Amino acid sequence: MAGNRWGTLFCVTTWGESHGPALGAVIDGCPAGIRLTPEEIQRELDRRRPSTSAASTSRAEKDRVEILSGVFEGQTTGTPIALLVRNTDARSEHYDELRNVFRPGHGDYTYWKKYGLRDWRGGGRASGRETVGRVAAGAVARKVVRAAGMEVIAYTRSIGGIGISPDALTRDQHWEKRVRESPLYCPDPQAASAMEERLAAVRKEGDTLGGVVEILVRGCPAGLGEPVFDKMDADLAKALMSIGTVKAVEVGEGCAVASKNGSEINDPMDAAGFVKNSAGGILAGITTGQDLVCRVYCKPIPSIALPQQTVDESGRERSIRVGGRHDICVIPRIVPVCEAMVLLVLADHWLRQKAGGR
Amino acid sequence: MAGNRWGTLFCVTTWGESHGPALGAVIDGCPAGIRLTPEEIQRELDRRRPSTSAASTSRAEKDRVEILSGVFEGQTTGTPIALLVRNTDARSEHYDELRNVFRPGHGDYTYWKKYGLRDWRGGGRASGRETVGRVAAGAVARKVVRAAGMEVIAYTRSIGGIGISPDALTRDQHWEKRVRESPLYCPDPQAASAMEERLAAVRKEGDTLGGVVEILVRGCPAGLGEPVFDKMDADLAKALMSIGTVKAVEVGEGCAVASKNGSEINDPMDAAGFVKNSAGGILAGITTGQDLVCRVYCKPIPSIALPQQTVDESGRERSIRVGGRHDICVIPRIVPVCEAMVLLVLADHWLRQKAGGR
Amino acid sequence: MAGNRWGTLFCVTTWGESHGPALGAVIDGCPAGIRLTPEEIQRELDRRRPSTSAASTSRAEKDRVEILSGVFEGQTTGTPIALLVRNTDARSEHYDELRNVFRPGHGDYTYWKKYGLRDWRGGGRASGRETVGRVAAGAVARKVVRAAGMEVIAYTRSIGGIGISPDALTRDQHWEKRVRESPLYCPDPQAASAMEERLAAVRKEGDTLGGVVEILVRGCPAGLGEPVFDKMDADLAKALMSIGTVKAVEVGEGCAVASKNGSEINDPMDAAGFVKNSAGGILAGITTGQDLVCRVYCKPIPSIALPQQTVDESGRERSIRVGGRHDICVIPRIVPVCEAMVLLVLADHWLRQKAGGR
Amino acid sequence: MAGNRWGTLFCVTTWGESHGPALGAVIDGCPAGIRLTPEEIQRELDRRRPSTSAASTSRAEKDRVEILSGVFEGQTTGTPIALLVRNTDARSEHYDELRNVFRPGHGDYTYWKKYGLRDWRGGGRASGRETVGRVAAGAVARKVVRAAGMEVIAYTRSIGGIGISPDALTRDQHWEKRVRESPLYCPDPQAASAMEERLAAVRKEGDTLGGVVEILVRGCPAGLGEPVFDKMDADLAKALMSIGTVKAVEVGEGCAVASKNGSEINDPMDAAGFVKNSAGGILAGITTGQDLVCRVYCKPIPSIALPQQTVDESGRERSIRVGGRHDICVIPRIVPVCEAMVLLVLADHWLRQKAGGR
Repeated sequence: MAGNRWGTLFCVTTWGESHGPALGAVIDGCPAGIRLTPEEIQRELDRRRPSTSAASTSRAEKDRVEILSGVFEGQTTGTPIALLVRNTDARSEHYDELRNVFRPGHGDYTYWKKYGLRDWRGGGRASGRETVGRVAAGAVARKVVRAAGMEVIAYTRSIGGIGISPDALTRDQHWEKRVRESPLYCPDPQAASAMEERLAAVRKEGDTLGGVVEILVRGCPAGLGEPVFDKMDADLAKALMSIGTVKAVEVGEGCAVASKNGSEINDPMDAAGFVKNSAGGILAGITTGQDLVCRVYCKPIPSIALPQQTVDESGRERSIRVGGRHDICVIPRIVPVCEAMVLLVLADHWLRQKAGGR
Repeated sequence: MAGNRWGTLFCVTTWGESHGPALGAVIDGCPAGIRLTPEEIQRELDRRRPSTSAASTSRAEKDRVEILSGVFEGQTTGTPIALLVRNTDARSEHYDELRNVFRPGHGDYTYWKKYGLRDWRGGGRASGRETVGRVAAGAVARKVVRAAGMEVIAYTRSIGGIGISPDALTRDQHWEKRVRESPLYCPDPQAASAMEERLAAVRKEGDTLGGVVEILVRGCPAGLGEPVFDKMDADLAKALMSIGTVKAVEVGEGCAVASKNGSEINDPMDAAGFVKNSAGGILAGITTGQDLVCRVYCKPIPSIALPQQTVDESGRERSIRVGGRHDICVIPRIVPVCEAMVLLVLADHWLRQKAGGR
Repeated sequence: MAGNRWGTLFCVTTWGESHGPALGAVIDGCPAGIRLTPEEIQRELDRRRPSTSAASTSRAEKDRVEILSGVFEGQTTGTPIALLVRNTDARSEHYDELRNVFRPGHGDYTYWKKYGLRDWRGGGRASGRETVGRVAAGAVARKVVRAAGMEVIAYTRSIGGIGISPDALTRDQHWEKRVRESPLYCPDPQAASAMEERLAAVRKEGDTLGGVVEILVRGCPAGLGEPVFDKMDADLAKALMSIGTVKAVEVGEGCAVASKNGSEINDPMDAAGFVKNSAGGILAGITTGQDLVCRVYCKPIPSIALPQQTVDESGRERSIRVGGRHDICVIPRIVPVCEAMVLLVLADHWLRQKAGGR
Repeated sequence: MAGNRWGTLFCVTTWGESHGPALGAVIDGCPAGIRLTPEEIQRELDRRRPSTSAASTSRAEKDRVEILSGVFEGQTTGTPIALLVRNTDARSEHYDELRNVFRPGHGDYTYWKKYGLRDWRGGGRASGRETVGRVAAGAVARKVVRAAGMEVIAYTRSIGGIGISPDALTRDQHWEKRVRESPLYCPDPQAASAMEERLAAVRKEGDTLGGVVEILVRGCPAGLGEPVFDKMDADLAKALMSIGTVKAVEVGEGCAVASKNGSEINDPMDAAGFVKNSAGGILAGITTGQDLVCRVYCKPIPSIALPQQTVDESGRERSIRVGGRHDICVIPRIVPVCEAMVLLVLADHWLRQKAGGR
């Protein structure tokens, strides 16, 4: 209840700090009888690691995952699955001089206000490394969700204001492969080149960039989501907004609906089903059986090399430059994290629907 | 756990259907010793009722609230507070001809797929009338939140694409009064006139409009919100996205962050505190002590008088016009609902911080 | 989370005070498509009312239940079921002189210490009348549990030290009928006569009696209950111990196991299944498919007519006699409450097993 | 929600199997700023290890605990505390011949029915080794509880029907030390000798013994516990009944109340407070400020060396003797587990009272 747990039936608790001995997750509620290997989890963790893109850091964590419980002879047993990833490349000395200083845009000040003390090494629990536990748990959720016929894929819509061409959303048979193989998870190679250039330029300036990620769920059955508060879109919004970098979440046409008419936004039906999908696959909080579509707007990484004005714990004004090894843009590394969060939501609602649906 | 409950410590369960005998809420976890009268709850419910604006329906529910438990001699006792509002103006005959038909943009189809049966009268549980319970509970939350020094106020940013002037956000001493007395909860009288004209025109066309609501929290202490999943912004996003009409939620600068640089977005600090508030009062999911600012994007009311194509339960194609008494725009009636949801989030996190903070 | 909620998937919140306007329950998570009438709930509430036994009070509440939501055309819809029972025979004047005094054996002192104020009329929330909500919700749970093939029946094992004959536990075809028709829910008519005599005598003395209730679940499938903390026996123990009068809970052979050998206690199996049932139908917290058997030990009603020494809110010593209308023994009225609590446990675990079991 | 989690605010998830790579616990909700060293946890784990008593196994796990997160510079940070204990002395070959057979009195059959597969090595998750996680988490809870002025101590009341003298409950200044230094946690040295003799005799017979443990909480403030369902005694009953060996839980006078009169059971008050403590320190589910007293009745260890009749997964009848390294009596090793569970309950309710009490 202190905020480090996700889910009602597929219930995940993550733990670990950026520069502590390890990070991990415990999954309580994974159904029994699902085949699961460490390699499947490793693959997702590898996707979260720094890529060859200009966006990425040089911190080179191996992030080797170990399954400590809940799997026997290659299958889940219904008991908790504990996952462990050791930190091996933490270099706290980068943070020594900032130990009493609040880095702008980070949680340094707020954690200090909340708890009265904080692990100042690399942001502690508020570091992006915390998402290791999410991605590891998401890999298990993917097995549950896939067994139910669903696939989740996230991809880059824009970086630093450079958007992809609408054509790049047309999904031919190679589309998914193109996304997965792109260092920026970008379905538009031309846009990707422009993004890389922009990233390289901004890196030189000592600054950072934000971007937009879209998440698509295919094969989602109708009927997932619960009335009123635990709507599918409400849980997606929470799951995605819980990612440190995200400042806005849209479902379906999202913000655009606010300036359209009802006759434009409603999705008519004919004998073959829904005629279009402005709603993003959710009506009254419950899935329609169409693709789910949502988007997140990510802020630029707050760790910039430029001088910034701030204060320390005693209230004294300070000018700092944030050293250490930091990404220039949270995309592409946030893409598997977005997938993980949507997977956690889907696995949970799938089990809830098994218990409570018709 | 079937989705009709909000909160961990200030825990609200709502119940009731549009055309059932009554609606209500039970609040478990309201601290003892808070003065509470039915009139205070009634005042909030009255704000939720149809206004004099062109946006509103003619369904004329009195929405008289009764406190059935948890208050003794004018004070809360720490035991559950049960609130009851009878439905008195439900006219189910309006819905008779639509009982087997799925109205586009509504939850008719998804509830039917989820549960195998549904209360087709006025949308049943998926009706906007469900928010009566939220607003009643929000009125109690307001007492808790106010005792902690916080105030929540929501207002209209745009309707049907007509936005307010940025100047209208400058808060002089009469600003809040202007908002509360505006039939559209709009701080910009000129924009409000234009909105009313547009609403009247769209009503004639048989169509409906969406809009944008901004919610502001003043007096919020630093330290509210929990790490990782139950971040303040994550819970706000869920709370607001759980309102049927909302398709996007932004915090602080929201979507705009995605195309800005880190040096623009980071909020520097000096000895007097934060220099600006791009973050919307939240860093790493925990409040900074600044104002909280978030926005919701509302879709147009799906009940339009124009003919629409749909199907019935047997899959047969149908063309329908939705009769009944419907609003043209969910604003202004959604404004107190947005306030209520933010109040529920704040009351809950306030209690959580009492238990777990320093 | 303030203690007035039971269950994870079949989730019940009860509310109401002894002398407030009403009591009730909200059930969130009842599956859709279950036939449910107010009469079925009324029948269980009627069983909870004072009986013709010498054990009973003269407070004559009608306890008429109203279903306010969640049922449409005679079937549950999957949305919350709100149940309401008005208090009509509350006479607070009986309690006027005790408003500042702590009645021994009651929650007067502890509620006052916890909350700083209390509804002193008839015990407020801590009154036995609170169980109205439990029994009403239990009636709904019974429909779910019965649909899964289970039946729950509770009966009196002893009152005031007068126990039933072991023969009375031999269940012939009329056994259940005998229990249900006995004013003391006692399967042994001779013992019942002796109990009635003892009750009448104790009433004259101004004193009260305790007793033992056994609860039996037939038709329980194997596999209900969760590992480690949410074991079936753990949840039964909590559910039953949460009844105000209960001071001990046993499962299967209960206390007796502590002085036996492993070779006596283990239940062997042969091709036909378990050979005996010392375990009470639960192994490692999960049901075996045998009958569940548990027992509760109830303390005497604390409201006695004899003078008692106590103090008031200012710490002044007082000698009081508790007036009002009180039972002499919590049995038989607690019998349907025990059934209700076991029903709530079973309904919840049945849904949990649907979600998480094989 | 799959049963491996305890608590609402001080929230513990345990994981791990008897013969898996490791066991552990994650604590979410421990307040920040509490001094905590691995040694303090190790000390409690060492108390759980086999003792020099005749009751104990020869499995010689070192049970070295590692703190992986949530502690920084010797203090808790408010973020999750992950605790890890590697299994180093697991010998699965002992179980090879029993892999398809259901050991009487164990969870083999029920886990298989529930999940369709099971980790048959040493009982898997249903093994007593699971309590490693409880004891480790309980050590952290002890720090929280102690900071609030409370102490928890458990001790042996009887083994195999041999009880301690009532005099042994008289607590002089050395009493606690005597209990802690006794290999059987028994406050009566003479009874302890008789118990050891009985244990040695039963070991020779190939059989096992049960016993009774009493748990005492001193320094407990008034006001802990929540109304109706989450009563202090209800949560204690669940916590203790969730220990595999426990078949009955009593609070205060427990079972004995059922045959006494109200005038005997009620605890009068005078100006100095309560005159006696029949209630065990709890009234209406809320603590009175007196000592809490409860007892558990433990069944004999089901792993006996005598031949037993059972069946295998194909339903074929089998006669087995359970080899491996097993205790003769769950006491004394269960004593720290009982303490741990009571500590988890108290830590949680202490935080709940901070949030919700006056």
